[in-house]
Amino acid sequence: MTILLSELARLVEGTLVGDGSLSIEGVAPLDVATPRQISFFSNRKYKADFLATKAGAVIVSKADVGGDVPKDVSLLVVDNPYLAFAQASTHFHHPPTYPAGIDPRAAVEASAEVDPTATVMPFAYVGRGVKVGARAVIHAHCSLLDGAVIGEDCVLYPGVVVREGCTLGPRTIVQPGAVIGGDGFGFAFDARKMRHFKVPQAGSVQVGADVEIGSNTCLDRGTLGDTVVAQGTKIDNLVQVAHNVEIGPLSLLAGCSAVAGSTTLGAGVVLGGQVGVIGHLNIGDGARLAAAAAVFQDVPAGAAYGGIPAQDQKRWLREQAAVHQLPELLKEVRDLRKRLAKLEKDE
Amino acid sequence: MTILLSELARLVEGTLVGDGSLSIEGVAPLDVATPRQISFFSNRKYKADFLATKAGAVIVSKADVGGDVPKDVSLLVVDNPYLAFAQASTHFHHPPTYPAGIDPRAAVEASAEVDPTATVMPFAYVGRGVKVGARAVIHAHCSLLDGAVIGEDCVLYPGVVVREGCTLGPRTIVQPGAVIGGDGFGFAFDARKMRHFKVPQAGSVQVGADVEIGSNTCLDRGTLGDTVVAQGTKIDNLVQVAHNVEIGPLSLLAGCSAVAGSTTLGAGVVLGGQVGVIGHLNIGDGARLAAAAAVFQDVPAGAAYGGIPAQDQKRWLREQAAVHQLPELLKEVRDLRKRLAKLEKDE
Amino acid sequence: MTILLSELARLVEGTLVGDGSLSIEGVAPLDVATPRQISFFSNRKYKADFLATKAGAVIVSKADVGGDVPKDVSLLVVDNPYLAFAQASTHFHHPPTYPAGIDPRAAVEASAEVDPTATVMPFAYVGRGVKVGARAVIHAHCSLLDGAVIGEDCVLYPGVVVREGCTLGPRTIVQPGAVIGGDGFGFAFDARKMRHFKVPQAGSVQVGADVEIGSNTCLDRGTLGDTVVAQGTKIDNLVQVAHNVEIGPLSLLAGCSAVAGSTTLGAGVVLGGQVGVIGHLNIGDGARLAAAAAVFQDVPAGAAYGGIPAQDQKRWLREQAAVHQLPELLKEVRDLRKRLAKLEKDE
Repeated sequence: MTILLSELARLVEGTLVGDGSLSIEGVAPLDVATPRQISFFSNRKYKADFLATKAGAVIVSKADVGGDVPKDVSLLVVDNPYLAFAQASTHFHHPPTYPAGIDPRAAVEASAEVDPTATVMPFAYVGRGVKVGARAVIHAHCSLLDGAVIGEDCVLYPGVVVREGCTLGPRTIVQPGAVIGGDGFGFAFDARKMRHFKVPQAGSVQVGADVEIGSNTCLDRGTLGDTVVAQGTKIDNLVQVAHNVEIGPLSLLAGCSAVAGSTTLGAGVVLGGQVGVIGHLNIGDGARLAAAAAVFQDVPAGAAYGGIPAQDQKRWLREQAAVHQLPELLKEVRDLRKRLAKLEKDE
Repeated sequence: MTILLSELARLVEGTLVGDGSLSIEGVAPLDVATPRQISFFSNRKYKADFLATKAGAVIVSKADVGGDVPKDVSLLVVDNPYLAFAQASTHFHHPPTYPAGIDPRAAVEASAEVDPTATVMPFAYVGRGVKVGARAVIHAHCSLLDGAVIGEDCVLYPGVVVREGCTLGPRTIVQPGAVIGGDGFGFAFDARKMRHFKVPQAGSVQVGADVEIGSNTCLDRGTLGDTVVAQGTKIDNLVQVAHNVEIGPLSLLAGCSAVAGSTTLGAGVVLGGQVGVIGHLNIGDGARLAAAAAVFQDVPAGAAYGGIPAQDQKRWLREQAAVHQLPELLKEVRDLRKRLAKLEKDE
Repeated sequence: MTILLSELARLVEGTLVGDGSLSIEGVAPLDVATPRQISFFSNRKYKADFLATKAGAVIVSKADVGGDVPKDVSLLVVDNPYLAFAQASTHFHHPPTYPAGIDPRAAVEASAEVDPTATVMPFAYVGRGVKVGARAVIHAHCSLLDGAVIGEDCVLYPGVVVREGCTLGPRTIVQPGAVIGGDGFGFAFDARKMRHFKVPQAGSVQVGADVEIGSNTCLDRGTLGDTVVAQGTKIDNLVQVAHNVEIGPLSLLAGCSAVAGSTTLGAGVVLGGQVGVIGHLNIGDGARLAAAAAVFQDVPAGAAYGGIPAQDQKRWLREQAAVHQLPELLKEVRDLRKRLAKLEKDE
């Protein structure tokens, strides 16, 4: 997979400053890269590593190439160094491949339709009426229950569960242990019989194309109608998406975030780690929620919110800065009170 | 499953205002229901949908039937519209059924006792001395380790693990990937040998009847004695219940909540999403913890708490409202200080 | 497994005050222990239970033996009662054992190397080039993908996934459903093609010796280079460890905590429940983060931090105490303002 630096420049559509005949053997971080490897510089936090790197070449932005640069290192100048790095890394790293076909140790119900180019690994269970598209890979211990539909080129890592009637669009990747279509958390309290009556969770989950779903993440099926994750959205590990949530395209949900029932996220929404959003809200297109935010009201499109309860991120930081001064403020007001009382007495 | 509206009225014990001869084919939300479907109205947020609905009938409360209602729509008047909707929906929606018996591709140890009316799906593992009750359904990739007991009519979705000696009461439903009886997090630091010494987790988990356990939720076994979940309690996805926690009947734990070791929750306790409760606390009967609360002290019965650290919910809201005024308060106190100094100087 | 109290005293290296000929049959909490059982007292919260215990013997610290003690109860005096209790309990409780060898219902690829003394249970999947060490136990439904290495004496409970090339050191225990080596959450936005381009996650996870990993916990593989968990660290349930995180030895991560990408935790770090740490930070040796803390900046070695955003724990408590006074402070400042205005007018 060795590649000339000049070819790599073409691959990432970058401008080469240096030696195009250099033969590149791999990618590595700035601090460990060797002269036969390429690295990238995009986070200013690693400026010292950039200047001291022993990499043969570094991918940099137009802005950064104007400042200090390491000596004797070729530069690949691009608009988006992280994207170019990802493209270069993709040249060197390929996921393992598996032979097509159904392993004899898998269990596939007679009414299931598995494309002959798909891979079904040992101990996968493919239920009644399930459809598995071309070139999809179903790893060991996946359970696809009645009527689930797995699109072309999907990869389901071990232990993924797709319950009845749920659909995954093409090229969607599901990390190990994720659960698509578990019952939503719906109960109506019956005060006369003193019980929580289970509300049927009769909808499903519709996941679009090019989605990624993280390890042990849970997407609940809808109560009536469906839970929806639109194309290109990426969801990290241990995320909870409740019944009838709708997530627009190209959103990013970081680890341990949670969205309660019937809430709608627009396109390109970003939830930081451990963000929580209560039910029946609207989070507008492009809204960004900072890590640990707890969202109790609608968020307008394009807004950056943070805090508990979540509000405009800058306002939240300003209020938190003020809270840091609060113990001293209390003392000062006590002092003002005394001095004022003295003045009043003197008057 | 079509049903006359008059029969549906009897089923949900409601008062019919309209055409009992209407033939109902299903349930649907207000905004998408057709004239052959029934819907329900209980959240005022959806009042506009209620007035514009094309549903053949709507389930409403006595309070709401007095206000504006849609024209040409039959009404089913009940005490609890959400409960009545759940009952109506149950008429139309039935979980898939599976043939009784042990699939030949399952592995059942010789000393296990599986009721002949139970279903054991392919690749389920049923360990030594395990008991599976009548009509229980054990899906693919469930692991029931030595001595586990699964009650009558339980449903264990794919990938559920019930470890050694844990018990599930009748009619309990476990969503995919949940873990019952993993080791609690108990270590004693041995300063001389510089290691965390593992404390044996020798208890088990006792789950009562009619409990529901969400996808990828974890209930740890007790250290000595048992972790207990009483009858009728419902636990959402990705919830952590630590060793020796005791949860009373009819409680509700929403998604991503977490209860640390040896804490006791009473009857009818409600934990909102992402609530955390530290160890060795008592949360009284009927206490309600708002989403994102972090509980560091006991909560009295019937209390509504919120915030970090959790306190009376109304007080918390009042304090948060005050925090919002804090940046301006700091300015004002600075101004008062100056004016007071001027007065003092003038005196 | 009955043992003389005098032998138990030797086992835990304690000083016996009482009857060494007492035959002890087990361990139990103070409030339920019988005269043939031993208990322990270390948490002052349970002082009343200590004084009223019917245990035959109680393990206590030197400090506590000086105060009130129960009558007619032998005492085992030690430096660390919790550690001594753990050692005593280990005498009585042994994990179940399984016959060595590969169950014929498991699937082991031809190129895998499984030590003949290891146990591979039904429906375990052992991929190409995987190595399983001596006496390791691989439970049902574990998936070990290409090139994974499982050390000697490891126990992998049901449903554990170890992805390609990840390594577990000797004696490491993995609770059910944990995922080692899922893809990290890395995407570069391609604005021209309007997509999140997947960054190859080409590293692995290196887990040291004597580590414990909780139920449904996720450790992501590195992007380049590895995610590392050093020896003796214990991780609770539902914890998220992102790509390229490095965790030093003997750290403790409590349930539902989360560490974002490329953050480094030192030796002996303690994360409380639901703690979140953002990416690219350094958490120093021995730092302690209180439950629910959200960490947005580096934490110095030895520090105790808490709150959102996390800061010195004592300062956080002081600020929270001040926030509790804030609604009244607002009133007082309003009052001061009026009185000051009156004085100014009078002047």
